[in-house]
Amino acid sequence: MAQSPHHLSIKLDKEYISGLRDIINREIESLSLPKSPSYIYEPISYALAGGGKRLRPILLYLTGEALGVNKEDLKYAGLAVELLHNFTLVHDDIMDQDDVRHGKHTIHKKWDTSTAILAGDGIYVLSLSLISQVNVHPLKVIKTFNDAALMVCEGQAYDKQYENDINISMDDYLVMIEKKTGYLIGLCTELAGILAGKNDKVVQALRLFGNYLGTAFQIQDDLLEIFANEKQMGKSLGSDLTKGKQTILSILAREKNYSEWDELNSNFDDMGESIRKQKLFIKENKIIDKVEKMIHSYIDKAISMLDNVPESCNSSLTQFTDLILTRDH
Amino acid sequence: MAQSPHHLSIKLDKEYISGLRDIINREIESLSLPKSPSYIYEPISYALAGGGKRLRPILLYLTGEALGVNKEDLKYAGLAVELLHNFTLVHDDIMDQDDVRHGKHTIHKKWDTSTAILAGDGIYVLSLSLISQVNVHPLKVIKTFNDAALMVCEGQAYDKQYENDINISMDDYLVMIEKKTGYLIGLCTELAGILAGKNDKVVQALRLFGNYLGTAFQIQDDLLEIFANEKQMGKSLGSDLTKGKQTILSILAREKNYSEWDELNSNFDDMGESIRKQKLFIKENKIIDKVEKMIHSYIDKAISMLDNVPESCNSSLTQFTDLILTRDH
Repeated sequence: MAQSPHHLSIKLDKEYISGLRDIINREIESLSLPKSPSYIYEPISYALAGGGKRLRPILLYLTGEALGVNKEDLKYAGLAVELLHNFTLVHDDIMDQDDVRHGKHTIHKKWDTSTAILAGDGIYVLSLSLISQVNVHPLKVIKTFNDAALMVCEGQAYDKQYENDINISMDDYLVMIEKKTGYLIGLCTELAGILAGKNDKVVQALRLFGNYLGTAFQIQDDLLEIFANEKQMGKSLGSDLTKGKQTILSILAREKNYSEWDELNSNFDDMGESIRKQKLFIKENKIIDKVEKMIHSYIDKAISMLDNVPESCNSSLTQFTDLILTRDH
Repeated sequence: MAQSPHHLSIKLDKEYISGLRDIINREIESLSLPKSPSYIYEPISYALAGGGKRLRPILLYLTGEALGVNKEDLKYAGLAVELLHNFTLVHDDIMDQDDVRHGKHTIHKKWDTSTAILAGDGIYVLSLSLISQVNVHPLKVIKTFNDAALMVCEGQAYDKQYENDINISMDDYLVMIEKKTGYLIGLCTELAGILAGKNDKVVQALRLFGNYLGTAFQIQDDLLEIFANEKQMGKSLGSDLTKGKQTILSILAREKNYSEWDELNSNFDDMGESIRKQKLFIKENKIIDKVEKMIHSYIDKAISMLDNVPESCNSSLTQFTDLILTRDH
């Protein structure tokens, strides 16, 4: 048996992940944004310092390290995907009127809508400046980055379009979350592959690994949004139910008993009581089991993609899927 | 005397400009955007079909044609600057609560704020996809495009930050409008230079030509916003005065008589009467003359930049400044 390169021996425990997170947080700090005009740079700094799990750049780093991507390109690409993600959060929070994120007020709540629109725009422009600085295959990297950004916009568009539409099917939902969440996580593994100079087949397999993982992640997010601990999630929970969002839970609940779920959804006089009844319906009808099965099936799909990916990635990426599976926030 | 190449003989009359505008409008139509998700693509199509003068791509075409840029790159770069401009309009209209643009309802008015945020984001992503497709010096072009986009965001940030701030000086104002408007018009001439493979000195002179022209254009816009014909402008006028916007007019009016102007600005019980009084103050104090002198001085600065630009550009660009000078909307 060939000797393992060092990355095969990485134990992807919480300590290792938090070490990577520290590196990424330091790189974000070292962006040293201008101070003026404060109207845009103050909320941008606030948003970028806002914590968050940094899962996307962590995944990009893990994949890139396993494939031997140079450190500078990892830095630029890691920062770029994290800023792209933050841009979408800032704008989505306005659209969804979410007032708390990572335990802090969102920009539109702390300042106002105009400030949040412009700060989001600025974060996106900065992400583009960062991604344009990679050294390996820059044009291919930029194109891939733009394509993913458009998919994310389309995903958010479906999310808004589907609000309060009780005819949304499971297929509609899966298309929406693949675009909204899958593509951006797929972008992380895909970029690592391109920056490592891998061929199209490998890059495609890496992208699909991320897409499936991202889809699993979003399904899990829908579940956590209703059943997790508010403090751990850093935001108020249950709002998907009251905002008419189409999630894995509402779709499975409707499939189970259309009229009963519709009835539960048409009365929000007592918000707390209504959410309590909906949660009870979900529990009694074993919907959580079904959701967990779906999450596992997407993780399995993701792992099956690793057959077409260099073996050096296997250990890190498989362990990463375990971390996602066991997350509680 | 050497024989003039054909572009020196171009007579830049309204017919020639409207011919270029037709080409650009056809290229925008031929983008053939997807239909779904309609939540994002319907308002994007609406915004892009919204008319507008297309001055930015026209300027890029004129400069690029004079410098021999290939047709495909002119198309991509022209579309990209027009879409970048439209992205800023869609988001600025939300921030400024402007309900009419080019004689039609703005997106946030026709749909809602969320739709307008996402449509603006989408238009910007599309502009990036377009600019990334140029064949000559693509990385330099992309970097230049990103840098200009950031300047435009900063300019809009100053614009918002300065609202209702009666301590804004002429210098502050000039920095703001150079960023808000100058850089994007400078981008058009600069990109044409890069795409023609010109050296840094020429590219820089082209950029400054556009910056100065753009600054003149914005000063003129401030004037037209108060004194032009509403129908020709395609929007309701005078809102700068009631929104506390810092414009060339308010700054010169304050310089003339701080307390009297402040008094006129603190009473909006009868909006129409208040605007009438402010307009009278501006006229009686010969502020319009001063503004027109400033516009001419920036146009002169722009034209002086042409000394460092290939002679083939002289005729078109000088004639273009004349068209700007004599515009009434």
